[in-house]
Amino acid sequence: METLTVALGERAYPIHVGRGLLDRCDLLVPFLRQPKVAIVTNSTVAPLYLERLAQSLRRAGVDVADILLPDGEQFKNWQTLNSIFDALLQRRCERSTTLVALGGGVVGDMTGFAAACFQRGMPFIQIPTTLLAQVDSSVGGKTAINHPLGKNMIGAFYQPKLVLADTDTLGTLPDRELRAGLAEVIKYGVIRDLAFFEWLEENIEHCLQRDPEALAEAICRSCRNKAEVVVADEHERGERALLNLGHTFGHAIEAGLGYGEWLHGEAVAAGTMMAAQLSLQLGWIASPEVARVEHLLQRAGLPVTGPTLAVERYLELMRHDKKVLAGKLNLVLLKGVGHAVVSDAASLAEVASAIARRSVHA
Amino acid sequence: METLTVALGERAYPIHVGRGLLDRCDLLVPFLRQPKVAIVTNSTVAPLYLERLAQSLRRAGVDVADILLPDGEQFKNWQTLNSIFDALLQRRCERSTTLVALGGGVVGDMTGFAAACFQRGMPFIQIPTTLLAQVDSSVGGKTAINHPLGKNMIGAFYQPKLVLADTDTLGTLPDRELRAGLAEVIKYGVIRDLAFFEWLEENIEHCLQRDPEALAEAICRSCRNKAEVVVADEHERGERALLNLGHTFGHAIEAGLGYGEWLHGEAVAAGTMMAAQLSLQLGWIASPEVARVEHLLQRAGLPVTGPTLAVERYLELMRHDKKVLAGKLNLVLLKGVGHAVVSDAASLAEVASAIARRSVHA
Repeated sequence: METLTVALGERAYPIHVGRGLLDRCDLLVPFLRQPKVAIVTNSTVAPLYLERLAQSLRRAGVDVADILLPDGEQFKNWQTLNSIFDALLQRRCERSTTLVALGGGVVGDMTGFAAACFQRGMPFIQIPTTLLAQVDSSVGGKTAINHPLGKNMIGAFYQPKLVLADTDTLGTLPDRELRAGLAEVIKYGVIRDLAFFEWLEENIEHCLQRDPEALAEAICRSCRNKAEVVVADEHERGERALLNLGHTFGHAIEAGLGYGEWLHGEAVAAGTMMAAQLSLQLGWIASPEVARVEHLLQRAGLPVTGPTLAVERYLELMRHDKKVLAGKLNLVLLKGVGHAVVSDAASLAEVASAIARRSVHA
Repeated sequence: METLTVALGERAYPIHVGRGLLDRCDLLVPFLRQPKVAIVTNSTVAPLYLERLAQSLRRAGVDVADILLPDGEQFKNWQTLNSIFDALLQRRCERSTTLVALGGGVVGDMTGFAAACFQRGMPFIQIPTTLLAQVDSSVGGKTAINHPLGKNMIGAFYQPKLVLADTDTLGTLPDRELRAGLAEVIKYGVIRDLAFFEWLEENIEHCLQRDPEALAEAICRSCRNKAEVVVADEHERGERALLNLGHTFGHAIEAGLGYGEWLHGEAVAAGTMMAAQLSLQLGWIASPEVARVEHLLQRAGLPVTGPTLAVERYLELMRHDKKVLAGKLNLVLLKGVGHAVVSDAASLAEVASAIARRSVHA
């Protein structure tokens, strides 16, 4: 087991990465304010891991309630969030009960937002069971639900007390989701860590083959990058926006197709290539650098072009994105592999052109 | 105009109290991060004050969107909150647009919570137009909506950038609402400020007659008390709970009758007497002190007994309250006039007895 810390002063918390952590409730119990937790999970993860976690907690004398959500991005909405509140109240959970998110990014984002809002804030713990959640969404305190007009539009910055990333849970992850998680792993290399990008060029096949050591290394290096960025800029006033490489394009893909059609990581991969294309058009990077990013994404089995969606539809959806500032489109662009910047330098026409060159046409 | 400061470090903000502040957009404009605001108000307040505020802002070059809510505590729910999000997105409001709450406590609580959640947090300003909002809900950053199982169950601690309390707006306030606001004013005296309580004993009729100087004095002294408590304990881990005198009983009254039947301040007044009664039963205060509080509330035209509601129903509703900790009922009780404490010393039987003695029986 390796342990990192997100050094946010009085909101600091540890991230444990390793095998068999689901049984290690000794890591979790010291963070409980009362011997009671509510575990939020979904219908896919519950049969795999819920009983193991719940048993381990019950043996330690903890009262465990469980809250089951339907599985899928399309359920990341008010209705599902409300069902968490209903369950918390019906089961007499209190402000000092701890909410535990057991699952992927959707479960983590919704559970975190529920914890932020229930009685104006209760403690919560992240136990991510997908690669995407282990390397990205469980760390850094971004919680949210979607709105019909935009992804993650309604949410809060709310930090967990603890993150437990049990790499054994990746054993049951479908291949497609493993690859989608790798999109975010590769992202850290592209935006700020050339050495990590090079390590991935060497080890991407080991990750795809689920070699436990390769995956643990990829998760730790990803979390370390994320933790550094979050500590420097918790509320995304500056540097943290770099983590959104490919995301403004990607969110448009997800919203345009209907949430759940493409996985988040797949949309981010295609969006990353749009950002790279735009950076190329601006003369900020050269073709071989674009090709290098593209090649690694392709080796990871990820899409490198967007789906059939009119360019005008992209622009319309992107204008709703949170990264719009004073009417200008702020995008994460590349100055090199391992060096991203936030910029509003690209005109809408240039953005449209980059999308067109990186999309499948109807 | 008098100005107080809520000294919360980087989240510090001023409260201006005085006449004609609705026209003083010079007080507001320096706090805007972009020249765009969305004013949230309701169907009662809009015809009275919306145009005046909007005009004053437009003359200063600010783009103004307005969002109209239905009036009433029964609309303090998800559906109405969602209508704010819909409007913000339809009008292309951004993370740096400022949300302005123009109205009473319901408008302020919902607008504040919308600001806390929209794109994970946008700036907001409180312009309270009721006495209750000016002395209580607009100050301190408690935002929330109701849940069918409990009042203010879903919310956030989220501080405004500025509070503008224009005492002229109290001129249009119905008498019943003025009296309800006085319940919270009296509360500050009862929990921690005997001198203020004595001032109110001298001046309650001037307040009821809407003497501008008496009202301004009552508002400033209330806000000063509230600001001191909030600064000492922003997230209600201790002292801040004192502000809930009468509220756990009061919330049960509001929920038991259906939100909107009794005004919040009316329920708090009756709840305050239940807390005083319970303190008397515990031997913590004497009958003349109970009578002194009762007399002042009565002079303010407020109820001093609860409505027809079974004691068991009270207890059931109170158990859902946020003040429950590890299964014990934490209540604000009195050690004297001007001296409240938070305590779980009262047994459920004693609580039931106090409720019974202070309720109208069916």
